[in-house]
Amino acid sequence: MIKYPNGGPTIKVDKNNSNSTTNRKNMGMSLEKDIELSSKYFMDHNLAIFYKKPTPVHVYKVSPTKSHLITEAYFEKKSTTDYNGLYRQRYIDFECKETKTKTLPLDRLSRHQVEHLFRVKQLGGIAFFVVRFNTLDETYVFDISHVIEYLKNNTKQAFSYDYIKTNGFLIRKSYSPRLELLKALDEAYFKDEIKEKQI
Amino acid sequence: MIKYPNGGPTIKVDKNNSNSTTNRKNMGMSLEKDIELSSKYFMDHNLAIFYKKPTPVHVYKVSPTKSHLITEAYFEKKSTTDYNGLYRQRYIDFECKETKTKTLPLDRLSRHQVEHLFRVKQLGGIAFFVVRFNTLDETYVFDISHVIEYLKNNTKQAFSYDYIKTNGFLIRKSYSPRLELLKALDEAYFKDEIKEKQI
Repeated sequence: MIKYPNGGPTIKVDKNNSNSTTNRKNMGMSLEKDIELSSKYFMDHNLAIFYKKPTPVHVYKVSPTKSHLITEAYFEKKSTTDYNGLYRQRYIDFECKETKTKTLPLDRLSRHQVEHLFRVKQLGGIAFFVVRFNTLDETYVFDISHVIEYLKNNTKQAFSYDYIKTNGFLIRKSYSPRLELLKALDEAYFKDEIKEKQI
Repeated sequence: MIKYPNGGPTIKVDKNNSNSTTNRKNMGMSLEKDIELSSKYFMDHNLAIFYKKPTPVHVYKVSPTKSHLITEAYFEKKSTTDYNGLYRQRYIDFECKETKTKTLPLDRLSRHQVEHLFRVKQLGGIAFFVVRFNTLDETYVFDISHVIEYLKNNTKQAFSYDYIKTNGFLIRKSYSPRLELLKALDEAYFKDEIKEKQI
């Protein structure tokens, strides 16, 4: 287990697995894995691109003999979100959150992430959290606007399941892709556009 | 100097500089620095977001005592481009290239980068190279479509200055932002949209 400085997220690194990279460190988390596999499917089928931002690494020392070998480095705290990308010409930006309870505690959303997603929204991008309720096995697209609205009007310390279900869009599960993220985005953001094309 | 495995790009790391990070490794290159400072300006003024993708690092070992300390890792070859981002609601993706001569040799563009930018274009994103001719101190937005067109119709080993000047869009220099990248993008991609708004 790696603990970030400044109370950042806790991640697992499998030290014996030669495939472990900063890109893959969260593969133990099922939502991350589902998103990763779904993104690969969307990319392979030329439907969308979602780019997983690696956790930044601060490099201090490299080997004097093997020049691509880093001998001292530190994980840095991420200042933005997990993914950005492209779908239906639009810029997409999102962060994944899993919860084992029937609420999503507000302190699970870092201030940096909320600010970043709000900025994306203001600039005309599409910005949301992907929230999975593990015990219910339900995953939602939860737009940043509802986060902001909630923070303005509430003093509670968590989003309830009902609030996210009501304001979010369910991402259905499937075999391939594992998550029907694009269908959820169509419903959430592109309904008018798709209707216009059909007329 | 760090040499990537598989003949990737050669980069400099200042081993004595505690500020050196994987994000900043190219700061010796003036184009990278100009883009970085300009991006900061655009972000601070809520005009656009350009995200610098760090070079991925393959982590093998972390310290058993200091858990955020990486003791063995390797630089990986980047499979995509330098930057992606958001401007005028659209997804933007680009790669920076500097040349000291009056041509840009084709082998400076990696196949991965060209393929990635072409995919972005096909999905309705905006995809280009930012090309700087160092001796002329001129920088251009050079759309991926002209790269593809050139590769199809030419056997020459380099893009000439004239080809890039004719098909590209000059990015003017300024004090703040250092590069008027957004003005060049307006001219290259948003002319109709801006005209419509003015009517």
